[in-house]
Amino acid sequence: MNNIQILINELVKFRDERNWSQFHNTKDLALAISIEAAELNELFLWKTTEEAELVDQNKLKEELADVFAFSLLLAGKLGFDVKEIVLEKIKRNGEKYPVEKSKGTAKKYNEL
Amino acid sequence: MNNIQILINELVKFRDERNWSQFHNTKDLALAISIEAAELNELFLWKTTEEAELVDQNKLKEELADVFAFSLLLAGKLGFDVKEIVLEKIKRNGEKYPVEKSKGTAKKYNEL
Amino acid sequence: MNNIQILINELVKFRDERNWSQFHNTKDLALAISIEAAELNELFLWKTTEEAELVDQNKLKEELADVFAFSLLLAGKLGFDVKEIVLEKIKRNGEKYPVEKSKGTAKKYNEL
Amino acid sequence: MNNIQILINELVKFRDERNWSQFHNTKDLALAISIEAAELNELFLWKTTEEAELVDQNKLKEELADVFAFSLLLAGKLGFDVKEIVLEKIKRNGEKYPVEKSKGTAKKYNEL
Repeated sequence: MNNIQILINELVKFRDERNWSQFHNTKDLALAISIEAAELNELFLWKTTEEAELVDQNKLKEELADVFAFSLLLAGKLGFDVKEIVLEKIKRNGEKYPVEKSKGTAKKYNEL
Repeated sequence: MNNIQILINELVKFRDERNWSQFHNTKDLALAISIEAAELNELFLWKTTEEAELVDQNKLKEELADVFAFSLLLAGKLGFDVKEIVLEKIKRNGEKYPVEKSKGTAKKYNEL
Repeated sequence: MNNIQILINELVKFRDERNWSQFHNTKDLALAISIEAAELNELFLWKTTEEAELVDQNKLKEELADVFAFSLLLAGKLGFDVKEIVLEKIKRNGEKYPVEKSKGTAKKYNEL
Repeated sequence: MNNIQILINELVKFRDERNWSQFHNTKDLALAISIEAAELNELFLWKTTEEAELVDQNKLKEELADVFAFSLLLAGKLGFDVKEIVLEKIKRNGEKYPVEKSKGTAKKYNEL
């Protein structure tokens, strides 16, 4: 079994042991991702780009793990194949950001 | 090679073809996750929990894929093993949310 | 003096007594708004729409006040007149969402 | 009438002309603030602190106005006096961040 499925299975097991699937509707799972992303960002607030590179790695691991956890739970709930949707998105982004136009610039595709 | 590493490699290849690693500092990658999470949430805004379950699956796949993409890029940049940090977080959450106390309730650990 | 300017002045005084203007660049102030907005949202996570209406009002006041505080500090830093920019935005939204098209629907303007 | 109340009245008028109060429950209004805050942040993504100061002022005004609009609508819906809750929060923050301890440092109160 691949790593992504192993993680989803562990997360679902954790959820079901606590009878939490009743709370895990699509809308609230998406909200949870957003809240965890904000907690990750809080580690960098008021810090320069350089200082941000020095943030405590254990805190970073925990907050990033939370983002992954809810993202994986949402993917699992919706029956999405994470590998497939990410590869598909890379392909689409390749069309929106062709190398020759986007190389070395951070402009959005609609400004290229 | 496992699925997670395959995805990180593809994302890094995409990034490097465009010479974008100069923009991908830790702080901005975290910010990008947060912005993509908000775009995911926007699909559910003003919708009831029931209506949220009916949102267009293709849009959902794209927005969730974006959250995964930047999360994987950040994990890759920091050298984190995604499987390891998520399993570690599940373990810690098991201590914060013991089954007997947290079963069937959505309370935060500090309110249990 | 109007209420908005009174609040900005108090916030600037608080900031300057602590010599915090060095941290309050535009990008980090915007990030702070986003983080406070997430803390506000956390009060509603895993709650139904009905349960959300019953959340502790004091917590709500505090989190919403934080969103206002950083929004006002950012407006003050950029020299924006809050009344003017909000009235201007209402006018623009009136063009994007004409009453006859948008009445009773939560669709985005590009889907009307 | 003070500026804040004028804005809330205009926003409520705009909302009621469109029969939108049915969508504006507390939870979704908070979500809307968060989404608008992310759009504000997107203006700064991949930009250095210095570049962020040069972002187009009109875009900034629009995105910040959106954050204010939903924050004011939420305050209005909940019957909060914005001036009062912000002044109250400044007072509380003064206790959490006494000048002598917090001067010149961006540390959180629990790390001071």
